[in-house]
Amino acid sequence: MPSGQRRTAVIIGGGFGGLRAAKRLANTDVNVILIDRNNHHLFQPLLYQVATAALSPGDIAQPLRSILRQSSNVHVMMSTVLHIDVDARRVVCDDGIVAYDHLILAPGARHSYFGNDSWERFAPGLKDLNDALRIRERLLTTFEEAESVIGTQLMKSLLTFVIVGAGPTGVELAGAIAEIADRTMLADFPKLRRSDVRVLLVQASGRILESFAEPLSRSAQRSLEALGVDVRLDTSVTDVTADGVRLGSEFIASRNVIWAAGNSASPLLADLGTPLDAAGRAIVEPDCSIPGYPDVFVIGDAARFNHTTDGTPLPAVAQPAMQMGAYVADLVRRNTEPTRRRPFRYRNLGSMATIGRARAIVDLGFFRSSGLFAWLMWAALHVMQLISFRNRFKVMIEWAWYYLSFQPGARLIINKDAPQEIRRWVSLNSNDNS
Amino acid sequence: MPSGQRRTAVIIGGGFGGLRAAKRLANTDVNVILIDRNNHHLFQPLLYQVATAALSPGDIAQPLRSILRQSSNVHVMMSTVLHIDVDARRVVCDDGIVAYDHLILAPGARHSYFGNDSWERFAPGLKDLNDALRIRERLLTTFEEAESVIGTQLMKSLLTFVIVGAGPTGVELAGAIAEIADRTMLADFPKLRRSDVRVLLVQASGRILESFAEPLSRSAQRSLEALGVDVRLDTSVTDVTADGVRLGSEFIASRNVIWAAGNSASPLLADLGTPLDAAGRAIVEPDCSIPGYPDVFVIGDAARFNHTTDGTPLPAVAQPAMQMGAYVADLVRRNTEPTRRRPFRYRNLGSMATIGRARAIVDLGFFRSSGLFAWLMWAALHVMQLISFRNRFKVMIEWAWYYLSFQPGARLIINKDAPQEIRRWVSLNSNDNS
Repeated sequence: MPSGQRRTAVIIGGGFGGLRAAKRLANTDVNVILIDRNNHHLFQPLLYQVATAALSPGDIAQPLRSILRQSSNVHVMMSTVLHIDVDARRVVCDDGIVAYDHLILAPGARHSYFGNDSWERFAPGLKDLNDALRIRERLLTTFEEAESVIGTQLMKSLLTFVIVGAGPTGVELAGAIAEIADRTMLADFPKLRRSDVRVLLVQASGRILESFAEPLSRSAQRSLEALGVDVRLDTSVTDVTADGVRLGSEFIASRNVIWAAGNSASPLLADLGTPLDAAGRAIVEPDCSIPGYPDVFVIGDAARFNHTTDGTPLPAVAQPAMQMGAYVADLVRRNTEPTRRRPFRYRNLGSMATIGRARAIVDLGFFRSSGLFAWLMWAALHVMQLISFRNRFKVMIEWAWYYLSFQPGARLIINKDAPQEIRRWVSLNSNDNS
Repeated sequence: MPSGQRRTAVIIGGGFGGLRAAKRLANTDVNVILIDRNNHHLFQPLLYQVATAALSPGDIAQPLRSILRQSSNVHVMMSTVLHIDVDARRVVCDDGIVAYDHLILAPGARHSYFGNDSWERFAPGLKDLNDALRIRERLLTTFEEAESVIGTQLMKSLLTFVIVGAGPTGVELAGAIAEIADRTMLADFPKLRRSDVRVLLVQASGRILESFAEPLSRSAQRSLEALGVDVRLDTSVTDVTADGVRLGSEFIASRNVIWAAGNSASPLLADLGTPLDAAGRAIVEPDCSIPGYPDVFVIGDAARFNHTTDGTPLPAVAQPAMQMGAYVADLVRRNTEPTRRRPFRYRNLGSMATIGRARAIVDLGFFRSSGLFAWLMWAALHVMQLISFRNRFKVMIEWAWYYLSFQPGARLIINKDAPQEIRRWVSLNSNDNS
């Protein structure tokens, strides 16, 4: 390409990785086109708080155009990518065709049902605001339904929550659901008792939060159990139906199964014609490009990066995505020759998870903590990372309010279709109640 | 009924009237069952702010159960009423059958399309949170779509907003849309210009805000025009299609028509077998009961009350509904004999409407004001009336933030179906752009 011409970098996905890359390329001499299906960047670590009615969608999401408004070289397109042609260097969207010099792919991942896609209907995952609102809807509606069928088996099943997978999302969901059920919902439903509500957290391996040090896992498990969560270790889900989940020989009747296990990368990656791992992630070179295409980078949850110092793949969380985003943006900005690229190095800044209203675990390697102090660290860090000052302020207010009152602020059933569907089901199947 | 037995009052609808009645009957010796399709009370006067992305649904709604939690004699049911049998004194819901001694009907109204129900598809109204989120979705998506078809006729149509009906809702919507388009959206879409955006407010009669004194109407109209709203008086809508609206001989191409004209009371009222007016409202006696059934009361937007001192019917706003709710609750509590009931008297406490960020009109009868001072009164009153301290505080913060930054906080496109439907339509019909 002639040196005087401006190069175009297309970024697919406005999550942590894609947004970091776009910001790093802002106000440089590279044309940047950021394509996302949604109009907003989502702060995914707090998504479970929308699902459990503690925060509103607007508290954890910000329009991409507003975030990047000051950068005249960055153009945001709300569009769905249909196809990528790496040989012709172009991206086909439903709005048209975009040509690129550099491509940064950050499309993220969805949950993996390990080949049992039919389970998704009965056990939704939690990846975007739609998922979160759907889960919130179910969580609130199920108490309404349960109250109308008191004393039946159906009531038990409506008040049984099964969370599959005990990574940070699963643990945070289980803790929040146990807490909101106990402290908020039961106060609104005087006919229901604490003993009617059951929260199960199912984990296939021998401990929860496997990416943390073992003592922290155990501490988190004790905190969950203190909130009334029934933690099942070494337990695999063998079937999910409309009626509940099968755990080997045991069947748990539940109308509220949430899937928080496994990752399956975006199906877009199949278009690249490059080797993928079992989770569908593109196996990338040390510079995050794909073999044979030094100008096509895959970052974040969609990338399988094997070149860490200890050989373990990077976790599917925000930190690696952001660091990769900054790294590849620098390669693009400098237009670094493939042979002169220093490999990507991940700096582990630690991990955190929270359990309920004021407990968390923090693992910074050199420093480990659990309990209230860890929660304060968790809260400070998460509030600081929210994109805008306004959201930071609002989320602090919401948390302070919830801490004092146990009244989370977003307990609204808005989508009438979902409850009606459940209700229809209930009226068809609860003859024992009539 | 034996005097020692507790009487049961069923209230249908948790809006301003129904909720006020329920609160007035709280902690008395009457059993109260409040039935609503939704789980929340909605502060409707601020609904247009959700539709224009200034507030989140959680800011203006509160679960009914939480509001009434302290009242052990009030039971909240989230359920849809299917049928009312006034002779058998029972209400049939999709959850079961509820018997009553007293019935307070407060089911509200929807917009009226004056017999042209097919228009609703292309010109949605604004009555509940679902409506508000749908309009927000369209408002935000239309700018995304417009940017992808710049220079075409379709772009003009996507950026033309037509609001039909210039009562408080229509005026507030028109002002807010003009302001958000100008100050917020255009900054995020650098390729679009102010002159591309058109906001029309269509009113069949000779002035806007007819329930206000004429000088205030004119002042409000000038404020709207200063914001760039094209106010069309004495103009009737003769057709609405997918392509726009017909105003007599003129056709306005628009993808964003919002209906804020007319009221049509709940179809439930037909079950009562009592005379209805043209808007479907039950024509009530001086004590708000229906003829022949002294224990069946209809209040709020569903009631046609002709017994005012000057003979004009009551406006379909919160104040009459709340006053009626308190009045009938007192009749029920005291179990007043029909012959000993003093007629309901409406006390007009004044009316208010707001135009954009910091202008309003206030008409208290003895006091009239427009401009910033009126807006401060409007803001103070509306914040005070929000149900919970938490919401009051949050809404104040949101308004202060918007006032300073012009960045409303809820600009999220969450429901992917709607935009895709529009997009599909666009791609089918915009060959002039390809």
